[in-house]
Formats: sequence, structure tokens, C-alpha cells
Amino acid sequence: MNAMADRPRRLESYVGGVWTRGAKEGVALLDAATGAPVALVDSTGIDFAAARAYGRDKAGPALRRMSFHERAAMLKALAQALMERKDEFYALSTATGATRTDSWIDIEGGIGTLFSYASKGRRELPNTRVLVDGDVETLSSDGTFSARHILTPLEGVAIHINAFNFPCWGMLEKLAPTLLAGMPAIVKPASQTAYLTELMVRRIVETGLLPEGAVQLVCGSIGDLLDHVDSQDVVTLTGSAVTGRKLKTHPAIVENSVRFTMEADSLNAAVLGHDAGPGTEEFELFVKEVAREMTAKAGQKCTAIRRVIAPRAHCDALIAALGERLGKVALGNPADESVKMGPLASLGQREEVRARLRDLAADAEIVVGDPSSALVVSGDPEAGAFLNPVLLYCDRPAAAGAVHDVEAFGPVSTVMPYDTADEAIELVKRGKGSLVTSVFTNDARIAEELVLGIAPFHGRVMIGNRRSAKSSTGHGSPLPGLVHGGPGRAGGGEELGGMRGVKHYMQRTAVQGAPSLLSAVTGRWVEGAEARVDGEHPFRKSLAELRIGDQLVTATRTVTLEDIEHFASFTGDTFYAHMDEEAARANPFFDGRVAHGYLIVSFAAGLFVDPAPGPVLANYGVDNLRLLTPVYPGDTLQVRLTCKEINPRINAEHGEVRWDCRVTNQTGATVAGYDVLTMVAKTRG
Amino acid sequence: MNAMADRPRRLESYVGGVWTRGAKEGVALLDAATGAPVALVDSTGIDFAAARAYGRDKAGPALRRMSFHERAAMLKALAQALMERKDEFYALSTATGATRTDSWIDIEGGIGTLFSYASKGRRELPNTRVLVDGDVETLSSDGTFSARHILTPLEGVAIHINAFNFPCWGMLEKLAPTLLAGMPAIVKPASQTAYLTELMVRRIVETGLLPEGAVQLVCGSIGDLLDHVDSQDVVTLTGSAVTGRKLKTHPAIVENSVRFTMEADSLNAAVLGHDAGPGTEEFELFVKEVAREMTAKAGQKCTAIRRVIAPRAHCDALIAALGERLGKVALGNPADESVKMGPLASLGQREEVRARLRDLAADAEIVVGDPSSALVVSGDPEAGAFLNPVLLYCDRPAAAGAVHDVEAFGPVSTVMPYDTADEAIELVKRGKGSLVTSVFTNDARIAEELVLGIAPFHGRVMIGNRRSAKSSTGHGSPLPGLVHGGPGRAGGGEELGGMRGVKHYMQRTAVQGAPSLLSAVTGRWVEGAEARVDGEHPFRKSLAELRIGDQLVTATRTVTLEDIEHFASFTGDTFYAHMDEEAARANPFFDGRVAHGYLIVSFAAGLFVDPAPGPVLANYGVDNLRLLTPVYPGDTLQVRLTCKEINPRINAEHGEVRWDCRVTNQTGATVAGYDVLTMVAKTRG
Repeated sequence: MNAMADRPRRLESYVGGVWTRGAKEGVALLDAATGAPVALVDSTGIDFAAARAYGRDKAGPALRRMSFHERAAMLKALAQALMERKDEFYALSTATGATRTDSWIDIEGGIGTLFSYASKGRRELPNTRVLVDGDVETLSSDGTFSARHILTPLEGVAIHINAFNFPCWGMLEKLAPTLLAGMPAIVKPASQTAYLTELMVRRIVETGLLPEGAVQLVCGSIGDLLDHVDSQDVVTLTGSAVTGRKLKTHPAIVENSVRFTMEADSLNAAVLGHDAGPGTEEFELFVKEVAREMTAKAGQKCTAIRRVIAPRAHCDALIAALGERLGKVALGNPADESVKMGPLASLGQREEVRARLRDLAADAEIVVGDPSSALVVSGDPEAGAFLNPVLLYCDRPAAAGAVHDVEAFGPVSTVMPYDTADEAIELVKRGKGSLVTSVFTNDARIAEELVLGIAPFHGRVMIGNRRSAKSSTGHGSPLPGLVHGGPGRAGGGEELGGMRGVKHYMQRTAVQGAPSLLSAVTGRWVEGAEARVDGEHPFRKSLAELRIGDQLVTATRTVTLEDIEHFASFTGDTFYAHMDEEAARANPFFDGRVAHGYLIVSFAAGLFVDPAPGPVLANYGVDNLRLLTPVYPGDTLQVRLTCKEINPRINAEHGEVRWDCRVTNQTGATVAGYDVLTMVAKTRG
Repeated sequence: MNAMADRPRRLESYVGGVWTRGAKEGVALLDAATGAPVALVDSTGIDFAAARAYGRDKAGPALRRMSFHERAAMLKALAQALMERKDEFYALSTATGATRTDSWIDIEGGIGTLFSYASKGRRELPNTRVLVDGDVETLSSDGTFSARHILTPLEGVAIHINAFNFPCWGMLEKLAPTLLAGMPAIVKPASQTAYLTELMVRRIVETGLLPEGAVQLVCGSIGDLLDHVDSQDVVTLTGSAVTGRKLKTHPAIVENSVRFTMEADSLNAAVLGHDAGPGTEEFELFVKEVAREMTAKAGQKCTAIRRVIAPRAHCDALIAALGERLGKVALGNPADESVKMGPLASLGQREEVRARLRDLAADAEIVVGDPSSALVVSGDPEAGAFLNPVLLYCDRPAAAGAVHDVEAFGPVSTVMPYDTADEAIELVKRGKGSLVTSVFTNDARIAEELVLGIAPFHGRVMIGNRRSAKSSTGHGSPLPGLVHGGPGRAGGGEELGGMRGVKHYMQRTAVQGAPSLLSAVTGRWVEGAEARVDGEHPFRKSLAELRIGDQLVTATRTVTLEDIEHFASFTGDTFYAHMDEEAARANPFFDGRVAHGYLIVSFAAGLFVDPAPGPVLANYGVDNLRLLTPVYPGDTLQVRLTCKEINPRINAEHGEVRWDCRVTNQTGATVAGYDVLTMVAKTRG
């Protein structure tokens, strides 16, 4: 970066398929540790309405033509390409004030989120373009009118407005579910660290892996972009509550009921259980976790622990232990490898944190650290935005206000005592909604009481104990599979959460109609829809030949008492309901000896299986088996097997086929219903 | 009502446990058909902050102490009690302008929603207080750190602001999911028809079936109620977009990220497929449905069809057929049994509709009806808010504005022609988001194209054809199991949708931790949690004795080639992978002949079943069976069965128990994993 210090480069935005500079020279962004200029940022003159239309009209249709598995494969390839270039991102990340560990969270954590969505998308979503949501709802007694919910991608653009603290992860954790859903995005990073986002988007575009326009970038202000949004767009914000309020009440967002998701900083807490006093493993873990959350990213994390709620008796020991640990944290220029904590993002941020510390002084006293001057192991303590960790103590937190309301976005936390579990719960709730709180205890009863007590106020709660000490991903880490967001102060939004996050970019629609039409629309066979019985056993059809609705109605088989006794002795399942007429009659569900459920499904397989080698390779599972009517000796079984879902894999010579299996008796009553899962070859080969 | 006409009664609000009048005399509400005063409404002087606190502090904890099944039983009892009193509601409903059929939708449709949620709640929710959401997420390779999402009831109050058109259904469709979730509500009906809501709430309170404070009622303005909401409250609105925008940007709602759901009127469409020309059954059904939607509730339904989109060639025939049908609709006083359509809700509403018709004249001409004067079969056409159906025709809808933007909330629709399917889709989308659109076609390909084309703009799409003609619930009916709401103009909200609607009143929280603590918090055994092996077979334990984590590790059994051959010949399942070594080897998944999956689960049952009569009454199903590792002749099986979930029924002597079943081979590899579902007696009996 040194060569650039004299004449910083002007960042570019990527809109409408071209890299473009703002019309003005722009605002200088400074290296957090040295104060040297890194880049200039400006977006004046960009046609934001055109950018939105470009994403919507050019990339939207292209993304929607891809299946979920194709989009998942695209994310995986993108993640691999970015991982290969990670050194470049690490090098630039230092200017943001990030240590190597901080950068790892941002860069590899972000790329890991792409990998995770790629993998979950392939495993948890079908290889189709329409997602079904929930079961079929039968709406008529004669089965001629049913409904099912589907999810289809929104046809607009997702506008992602990100915070300065995670220029890579912040972008990628939103992009992964957006692209998997089939929506294009416009990314607007916070200016302070936009140079790193710009570099990564440059690499993304260069890969050519995404449809053109799927990701656009605005470095600088988004100008009038939001004036143009409509009901098919999504706006997500990670940032301050003040910005959030402004965007949420933006006329176009309100007028068009635009989906708006917000994830704001919150007064996250960590609670030490009564059982976890000094000397316990949980106490040690708690100290480590609080210190880590205070110092990672210099405390500039929306999930950082701001309130440390501990049994009154343990507060002195806790403060002493934290003081000792925090005292060892080497503050300095993150380019220096011995440094454990870097500077804040900017001198302005340091002033902001100092101002908030003055607010906190109304309720709490500083017990560790001195915010007025910085002790550094490297770097210039004044030119860089350095601040040593500051721990406060608030003796009467129930009567306090600022400690539950004021967030100092830096290496700052407040210890507060509690006596009863109810008090601890009330203190946590005083945060008015948080992204995450952690509870450290090794006592199941305490965990249950505290976690359920605070759950309605949180998007995530982590329990720490000795058992998970080594494997825990920690209080501060949002994970791709878990919901990230929280009620109230935390913004009221939800992101990630695995496939839940994908659905934020799709519209849920209840579709009602006759089963055959419903099958055509959803691409899944629905009970009551017409079936195709063409004389050929459907197990003889390859994926290329098979159609949903292909059906087999088998021959019949009568179950004898000998069959039941034989099955019992063969398998060892001599449950009395199969063996003892009198005892079976005494059972509230049976009128006498009944066939085993496992016998019924085994005989059913005997009826529907086609023995010779063919496209059906294996029956790898069964879903939702329900034994609905008892089978008595003398009952005659018949099976109806119908092809329900077909999922060809994109990188294999086979795919999954789900069959609806219905076993009936001689009266036509369904004795068992379930899905049979098979692996089927794409061709007869 | 006649006796009251001289001196209408003053409606009361039910707040803080007492029925109370506003401080002022109030505004007179008039009978829609006769203009006679029915009631006076005013809420001046009510302490709204106290009402909110009362619901939250008194009813909230009481509701949260109940399990889902207890709340479902409460809803069922309430529905039964209201159904017994339905005649009283019907009698009063006439004053709103509702015919008997209109009242049926409102009154019995509303009570039916309670029944539906009661029944779905019992079937689809566990008998617990905490709901788990989705599967366990394993977060560490050694299994010591996992996560699961839970849902807990929000701890505030749900404020339901309802529209005038459905004074009963509008309240009950929101109350059902709210109460099932465990949240108290404050109901604010639109003043125009609040007398009917007041009567029903009176009867609800009298039953004593709900915890005190679970339902409060405000007749009249809600005053400063919204100033007091916080992140644990929910505000839902059914009403106009203008009111919606005002509430959505209310400072307390924005500031505290209060959940706000809105369901607004929209320009819903009905599309006639190209195949459905005059002479087809679908054409007849389409004419019937459009006419019904125009006239039911005098067209005052948020789901009514406002835009009739038909192939250009069929428009003349369609207008003629609609004209004939609409001409036969007898308009008059709904107290008169021959009347098929009642008046609008008020004279003001009629003036409003006439004004909107003037707006629509910019794009469309009236082809049926005359809005300037009413033809009635009974009643005074000037004193009552009577208006005959009005059909318009817009010849160039792609170039038009008003027909896609202006809603005349009465018996008014506009026919518009299309040529291609793409044009039809574009016209539908011009509504900018709707609650529902229906598509009439008997062609699966047309259904697929149109439905998927418009889905992202809708909360519900209905397909009409001959097959579902008799059983269809119709374009205009929201159903408890289906999502009600829509993007954009429709408000961007979601209601109902079965258990989805319940979750709108709960907080989703990701809980992370060691499996044992996670089990304690969620009340469901999580893989990796400690198990209890106490020497007693868990099938010998009653529901009262059984605990999650109770575990059985069975003896072993070796599978022989003879077993496989015997099972094949016994069941008839002679699939080549079990019978033919060479062919099995050629299969990509097997290294030789393998045991049948059904043999594995049958042997597993033989290993884990305890034969003598006892608390376990039946194995009624299996979920999520996956065959993970092939079993070859000579492999030795062992089963680990762990109690995972316990669901005692509230009105039976037994309940469901879900067991985690893991079958391993001699190397410890899992060959099959599944859930075994059993019915277990509450006591050893």
C-alpha cells in the first residue's frame, strides 16, 4: 500500500456491466493504523435507476433459468476461485485495522459462507426452479381440489447495504442466499472499507462465473437508488439503527411494501451461571470468551458482548481475571505479527467510542483500561485509531439506563451483578432485543431456565460449557445454518439460517386447483392427479423416460397367520400384538392379532419391485411411513406406486426419484402410506 | 333492532377486565339498508397503555403456561360455544348489509377458522410449550457442539386492527393463530360494523374459556395505543394502504422494530385461458366466479376480482354472459330472503365507489349497470347504500393506468383483453402485487405458464377447471391452511397459512451448545447428548416414567446369505442386488449382494422389541429412514434406540413417543438411521 500512499486510487463502481468512477475526486479513506490514504470514494453521476433495471432485466432472467443445483454449483466455483486469491485480500485487509485473525473471519468466513450455501443448496433443495413449501393441503373431501405452497424468486433486485466492519463477509453472507434464490444484487459497502469489497467484486466479475449483472457494486453513496424500488425488490441493511429507521421509512419502500431486512448492533450479553464460579471450567471459558469478544476486530462486531452479567459473588474474581487477560492483549499495527488487537476503523470511530464511554459513565465506572491514551506495541498511537480494551462495572444494573442502551462500538464491555436467575433474565431483556446472548453453565436446569427465559428477545443464544469448549464456534460468530438477526434493537430482521435465508428472496404463493393441474404447476405429483399406466414397469424407465404420475398397480397378496408367525420367528419381533390373540384384543388399537408394520412394507416391496437390473439402482430410504389400518390374517394387500418427484443430479449419471406408495387392503382402505426413495440412472445404459 | 332504532346503544370496549364506555356519546353507526341508527361508538378516555400492560402481564403468562394442545383445545371449545350462539350473530349481521350467505362467510367462516386452527394445532404441533423449527444442525465434527432453532411466544400483545367488511371473520382469523401461539390480543374493529364484533367478544368473554385478558376489545379509536408498543408486540392491519403507510411509519413501530403485518385490498385478477372459450365448462365457471366475486358482500372483499383478463376473441361473449348473469342479481334489503345482494356498508362507501368509477372512466367504459341510481327489489334505494353491479371494459389495458391502480371497493370489475400469454402475465403484474389471482383453464401447459408467470406477484393463485368445479372453495376465500396476503399493493404481509401463521407471533431463536444442554433446553433428545441406560427396557416404561434420553442398546445379529435369500423368497422382493452377485457388483453403490433395507429394519425391530404387553401399544410409523451403508452377508447388526420426543395427549390415556433408531454394523458404521414412532400408555395400567 505504501506506493499508493502519495496518490490514492479512485475506487470504481461496477454498474450496467462497466467499471465506472464517480464524477468527483471523492473522499479519502485512511489506513486505520497509519493514517495514510488508501483510496478515494465517490459515486456521483451514476445512473442508479439504470443499474437497477440492468440487474433486473439482464441478470434476473438468466439466474431464474438456472436450477437450484446449478446456482449452488456456481456458488461453489465462485468460492473456490476466491479462495485461490485470498492472499490478495489478506494483504489489503490490514489497512482496515484487521489482524490476521480478524481478516480470517472476514475473508475466509465469507468465502466459507459461499461454500456452505453451495453445499446446503445441493443437499437441501431440489434440482428444480420452483421450490415447494410444506405438504399438500387437501381442500375437498372427494380429493378434486387441493393446494400447495410454492416459492419462486422475486423478479427485482436485492440491494445490500453493508457495514464497514466486515467488507468481505458482510457482502458474501448476503450474496450467497440471494444468488441461490435466483435474484441479482447491488452491493453497497460502507465507504470506510469499500476498497476491500471493490477488490473482491473485481475478482468475482473477472471469474465470469456469474451471469452478467448478477452482482453490481456501488462504492460511495447509493444516491437515488431507493427511490426506484418496487415490490419485487429487497433491501437489506447491516448498520446503525439511525440509518435503519431512515431507510425503513423511505417513501418508495413504504409505498410499495418493499421487503426490508435490518440487522443492527445490539447490547448483546453474556451470562455466567450460578454454578460457574471461579475454579470451574465454565468460569475460565467465560473469561476467555468475554475477552475474545471484546478484542476480536477491536470489539467492532455487531455480535460483540457488551454486557457481562454475573452472579454478584463472582464479580470481583471475574473483573480480576478479565483485567489480567485484557492486560496481555498487544495493541498495535496489524501488519506487525505480534499484535493481537488492531486499531479501530478510523480516528472518527475512536472519538465516537470515547463519547459513548462518557455516556456510560453515568451508570458505570471503568475498572480496566484507560480510554484517554493508547498503549501500543507498534504504530503511532495518535495517527492510528488505537484504543486499549475498557471494562466497566455497573453495581446497580436494574436501576441503570445507559449500560442497557448505549453501545460503544469498540473493545468495551460492562460487568453487572445479579442475584437470582429471574434478575439475570430481566437484565438481559433490558437490551430490548439482541442478536445473541451466551449463557455459560454446566447445569442443565440453569441452562433451560436462562435460555428459555431470554429466547423471545434473541435471534441466537449460545450455551458454553466444558463439553463444547474445544468445538464451540463462539458467541460472536453468525453461522450460515443459523438465523442471524434479532428482534427490537437488533433490527427485527433475519438473515442466513440455512435455506430460511434463501426464502427471504422468494415469494411464497399458495396454489389451489385440481390435483392434475397442481402437479403440472409444481412439478410434483399430487394425490388425486391423473396417473400414467402404460404397461411398462416404471422401474424399467430411466430418468430421461420417467414422468411424474407414472404409476404401477401391483398384483395382490393375502397375509396369512402363518406369514405373521413366520415373520415373527424369522426376525425375532414377537411383540404380543402379533402373537397373542387375547392380549392383542386388549390393546386399544387392535381387534386381534395383526401383521407387523415391517411385514407389510416388506410384502409391499415384494409386490412392487421389478427384479432384473435396470435404471432403478437402489431404494435408499423411506419417508413418512404411517400405518393407518391394522392388517389382520386373511387381509389382502395391493400396492399403488406413483412417481412423485424426479431430481436428476447435475454431476452424476443418476438422480433421486421419490415414489408415492400406498398399500391398501381388500376393502380399499389404506393400510400404509409412505414415500419410497430410489436412485435411478439417467439412461438405460 | 327496531326497538333500538330510537335510541341506539353505546358500544363498550373490553379493557383491563371490564366493559367500559368512552367518555363521549359517540358517533352513530347506521344500518346499511335502512339508514336507521344501530349503535354509537366512542373510546375517549380509555387508558390504552394500561390495556396493553394488562394483556401482557395478566394474560401473557397464563397463555404461555399452557401447551399448544391445551391452547388448541381452548380454541375448539370457544368455537363450539360461538357456534351455539350463531343465530344471534346472524340477526345482528343484517344491519351491516350482509345477506345470509355473506353472513355465513363472516360468522361461520370465522368460527370455522377457530375449528381449523384447533384441529391443525393438535395434529401438527407437539403438546409442548416450545416449538422446534427444523432439524438439528451439527456444528462440530466430534459431535460436541450442535444447534437447533426454537420458537417461543412473544411476550407482548398482538394488536389487531380490522376492516369493516368482516367484523367476525376478520377478528377470528387473526385471533386463532395468535392465541395458539400463546399471545394475548387487543382487537380493534373498524367502527362501521363494530357492534357485531362487540357482540361476539361479549360472548367470548362470557364463556370464561380464555385466560382473563387474552382478548381485549377497543370500539372506536385506538388513541395512543401504538405509542406504547415495543419489540415484543405485534401489530397487524387489514385495511387501506393509506392507513397502512401511516401505521407502518409510526415512530414507536419503527423505533422498536415492531413486527407489523399488513393485508391491503389489491387489484386482484381473474384470467381466462385461451382454451376456455364460450361453450367450454371453464368459460361457464369463469362467468359464475366473476359474477359471484362481484356480488358477494356487494363486492366489498379485499380478494374480490377487479380485473377480468380474457382472450380478445372471447371478450364480447364474456361481457354478454356476465351482463345476463349480473342482471339477475336481486339487490335489496338483506333482511328480505329473496335478495341476493345487499347494500354497501354505508352511504359514504357508495359515494366512494362512485368517485372511483369516475376515475376508472379515464381508461374504461361501463358495459353493464348504471351506478347513478339503484334498482332494488326491496328497501329504499336512497336511504340504503344500494348499488347495482357495474362491469367496465378497457380495450387497451397495456396502455391504461387507472384500471390497474384504482380500486372501487364495491360490485365493480373491468374486463380487459389479451392476445398472448405473456401479455396476460404482464397485465396481471400491472396490479403491483395482489392477494389472489385465479386462472381458468383445463390445459396443464397453460396453467403452468400462467401460474408460474404471475406467482411472484401473489400470495395465492387459484386454478379453476371442470374437475374442481364442484369442490372449489373459490377465488375469494382465504383458507386457514393457506397463506393470505400478498406482496406490494397487497401490503407485503402474510397471515394464516396453517402453522406458518402461528409462527408470526413467536420468536425464532437459534440455540447452540453441547448436545446434553441443547436437549434440556429444547425438550427433545439431540444426537450426542447423554443417554440413560438403567437396565430396564424403555418399552416397559409408561409415559409418566419415560424420559428423553432413555436408551436401549440391543444384542447383535449377523445377517447371513441364507437370511437374504430367505427374505427374498418369503416377501417376493428378488431385486437383483440381493440375488445376483455379479449383477450386484455392477451396481455403482454395491460391492456384491446386499441385504434388503426392509430386512435390516425388520431385524432391527426383532432386536429392539420387547414382546410382552406393556406401556408401548403400537409402532404406528417410521420417519426419515435412510439406508446409509450397504449390509453384506456376514455383517453383524446392532441397534441403539433412544427416546427422542414424548407427546402425551391431553384427552387420551396415551401419547406419541418418537425414538431415534440407529442400526450399526460390526465396524460401528451406521447402516440405517430413522425415527420409530410409537403409541405409549400414560401409566403401566
